[in-house]
Amino acid sequence: MKKFGVSIQTVRLDRLELGIPELRERLKLMAEQTYDQVRSLPLHEVIGDVIDLQLDKSGISIFEIKPEHVFSRTKIARGHHIFSQANSLAVAVIDDEVALTASADIRFIRPVRLGEKCVAKAYVRSGSQAGGKAHVEVFTYVGDEKVFQGNFMIYRTKTIEQDQTEGVDNHANSN
Amino acid sequence: MKKFGVSIQTVRLDRLELGIPELRERLKLMAEQTYDQVRSLPLHEVIGDVIDLQLDKSGISIFEIKPEHVFSRTKIARGHHIFSQANSLAVAVIDDEVALTASADIRFIRPVRLGEKCVAKAYVRSGSQAGGKAHVEVFTYVGDEKVFQGNFMIYRTKTIEQDQTEGVDNHANSN
Repeated sequence: MKKFGVSIQTVRLDRLELGIPELRERLKLMAEQTYDQVRSLPLHEVIGDVIDLQLDKSGISIFEIKPEHVFSRTKIARGHHIFSQANSLAVAVIDDEVALTASADIRFIRPVRLGEKCVAKAYVRSGSQAGGKAHVEVFTYVGDEKVFQGNFMIYRTKTIEQDQTEGVDNHANSN
Repeated sequence: MKKFGVSIQTVRLDRLELGIPELRERLKLMAEQTYDQVRSLPLHEVIGDVIDLQLDKSGISIFEIKPEHVFSRTKIARGHHIFSQANSLAVAVIDDEVALTASADIRFIRPVRLGEKCVAKAYVRSGSQAGGKAHVEVFTYVGDEKVFQGNFMIYRTKTIEQDQTEGVDNHANSN
């Protein structure tokens, strides 16, 4: 891969863009074997298909906008689906048993439409040590157009009980 | 109502707190007859039951956390459901045919658990004239505890086509 001056991820995404289903399936299988396992939630609870994951570093997921995700009138994706993909990826990259979104600052850059494929990329920017909060940045693209970006503060803890006995407020919640 | 120094809304919510189902149904019927009609999206696309709505002013909705809304491990509501209720209410209060979330600044204050009833209250703070952006503040409570708050910038327009022909970026998107 190095020969061509592109990363494996780029190639993966380029291939996905081709939309060849068998290739996508093969890729998914391959990815499942090579990327880290999600720890903070069961994989099936992540919104979108995780195609790459480096715990406490970065992650990529793909989510296709289907009829059930759009407004009936405009066929524009409802914001909470775009948010869900980004938010659950931000939680999934955390290398802890419990990771909950404390706060987020999000921007919807352009409407996403029925049939479009959203590729979300998450980067852990700080707070990668256990305990405390992590800052995770997420960018979502359709093709090479950025459609969404968000800054997530993720609260990480070993168990949720620990959080409660400490009576912690303001930095604990659901993904 | 004035005699007791409380607003109709307070009485409504107090009654809801009692959780008497028939009363709730009656109340909902009554509310449907007295509050404004949602314009920006079909009522059934609002997440949660809208129990009060004053277009371009304020709105209230109720959303109960059911098994399909929680993480399997912790029984804590997934953040995007809390977000969805708030976001769709922020869109519903807008008195325009198309209203899309441009950006949001959100905070999850404490985890919400299975069976809890989330009461979201939205207030239009500025930008209530047609066109442009509106600032909508949303607070979500379980009983008298605040569990979520968000500042939403909602882009309003007559039609989505208008938005596109203007080539507007950065302030158009899905709810």
